Amino acid sequence: MKRIFFNEVATRDGFQIEPEFIPTDSKVALVDALSECGYAKIEVTSFTSPKAIPMLRDADEVMGRIRRVPGVEYTVLVPNLRGAERALEARADELNLVMSTSETHNLANLRMPMAHSFAALSEVIQRVDGRTPINVSLSCCFGCPMEGEVPQESVLAWVKRFADLGVRGVTICDTTGMAHPAQVSRMVEALQQRFAQLQLTLHFHNTRGMGLANLLAGVQGGITRFDGSLGGLGGCPYAPGASGNISSEDAIHMLAAMGYDTGIDLPKLLAVARQMPNIVGHEVPGQVAKAGRTEDLHPAPEFVAALREQFA
Amino acid sequence: MKRIFFNEVATRDGFQIEPEFIPTDSKVALVDALSECGYAKIEVTSFTSPKAIPMLRDADEVMGRIRRVPGVEYTVLVPNLRGAERALEARADELNLVMSTSETHNLANLRMPMAHSFAALSEVIQRVDGRTPINVSLSCCFGCPMEGEVPQESVLAWVKRFADLGVRGVTICDTTGMAHPAQVSRMVEALQQRFAQLQLTLHFHNTRGMGLANLLAGVQGGITRFDGSLGGLGGCPYAPGASGNISSEDAIHMLAAMGYDTGIDLPKLLAVARQMPNIVGHEVPGQVAKAGRTEDLHPAPEFVAALREQFA
Repeated sequence: MKRIFFNEVATRDGFQIEPEFIPTDSKVALVDALSECGYAKIEVTSFTSPKAIPMLRDADEVMGRIRRVPGVEYTVLVPNLRGAERALEARADELNLVMSTSETHNLANLRMPMAHSFAALSEVIQRVDGRTPINVSLSCCFGCPMEGEVPQESVLAWVKRFADLGVRGVTICDTTGMAHPAQVSRMVEALQQRFAQLQLTLHFHNTRGMGLANLLAGVQGGITRFDGSLGGLGGCPYAPGASGNISSEDAIHMLAAMGYDTGIDLPKLLAVARQMPNIVGHEVPGQVAKAGRTEDLHPAPEFVAALREQFA
Repeated sequence: MKRIFFNEVATRDGFQIEPEFIPTDSKVALVDALSECGYAKIEVTSFTSPKAIPMLRDADEVMGRIRRVPGVEYTVLVPNLRGAERALEARADELNLVMSTSETHNLANLRMPMAHSFAALSEVIQRVDGRTPINVSLSCCFGCPMEGEVPQESVLAWVKRFADLGVRGVTICDTTGMAHPAQVSRMVEALQQRFAQLQLTLHFHNTRGMGLANLLAGVQGGITRFDGSLGGLGGCPYAPGASGNISSEDAIHMLAAMGYDTGIDLPKLLAVARQMPNIVGHEVPGQVAKAGRTEDLHPAPEFVAALREQFA
């Protein structure tokens, strides 16, 4: 029973693109419910400018009000020094920094070149100075929706620069669902060879239906940490109508069926997942919440008993 | 570039559960469009009683009107002797027989015990007497939604009984999306060891999001034949709201990205897939038709050019 560690990103990555503001009470209640499910980590919110992401303008309040369960790490996204200060004040267990491995995507998403992002994040890492563990999420590691191919060597070079700055972990993100399993296998092999000391996390989207196949390739390659978003919340502005992040409950259901120890109480998680359409006000892509677990059986139609007798 | 062979089942397995009758003209036009895409096989229709499946009551007419492309096999589902006669008259290239490996599912679906189904199908095989190749699709090979576990040994025993009768191929069906990748790997290993001479096909559903992960496990195990349903059409009466069969275009897109030779012209296939919502009158689960292929890039937002200059 190999242990797999899940990081739930629905309240940050998932909520961030929702059009309707989700009340602070709902956010706190959802994080509290998730805390009872057995996650290794929960990305609670983002200490971004309230103007940039109005949905997460209540980050300080949410972090102050959640009920922390021992053993769960509460991480927050941090874009810059100001965000890092707020995150430290809020006693986040980890700071998650973010930049892209594609210049065009970094410009489009963070409004500055990669070199500027790297300089800013380096400053954050220096200022935090080991008081709180730092993770870096690298976007577009398997391709950029505007540039196309992102060479594996470029991704590995960014990982190395952050590893050299002493970060605890790096998340390799397939931001818009472009990865395929063979690519994941190659990436994972290279990462494990060169950065065995880093906490390596994979972050997949299901934009083109390959999310759980990519997760399988990651697990087969020895990766034990994954991001997931409850209900499959989240998405990609370049693929309207397509799925977003991989659904945590679908991923966890699959790994549990395969015999992995995810640490998650799946019935409890599914009960929370089934609240998601109410919380966000629309249907969500997750499948297991609709279909039930594999072991949730159905009664046979009534005529079957009569047929059994007839043929006895 | 290993060759993978796809069997398209949308017009049979997919259409079968649609509530609104799809006009014969639409069926013929769809099969003709699919014939141009590079499939190895197309399951055109079913020679079932028109009362049992009114949707496919036009089976003889559809088979008579389609334009056959050399190299594509046109297969049909056949439940009994009468169906076999109609299929032979219609010059089907293959007869696809079906029974379940779960007694309860066989009673619920075919209204008779497995032993009776086997006897009836044996009679069909004897009567056809090698004039046309025969495939047998075995339902519930990875679990039954009513009984639960279906032992692998039971499945292998059914495969052996049909192999002994001289059928050309057997399709191992995950009828309601209960399979997980580790189970698929075990099943495939056992099948390859014992039935290397049979054409082995895997048939997956995406009911719990595991469809393409299971396909990956099958490909990794050396299987080269798969069923798929365009748009992900089809479904499972026990999981309302959940996905049905794996989407052909999503599966083919993934395998092509991984470097497999699927024989399929993907842009042509996606053009057909994008017609599916019009044909069936509702949204369909396939993702790639919505998101585009990985290599279909998007223009950068206009402000990116200005940013590039500003930071130059």
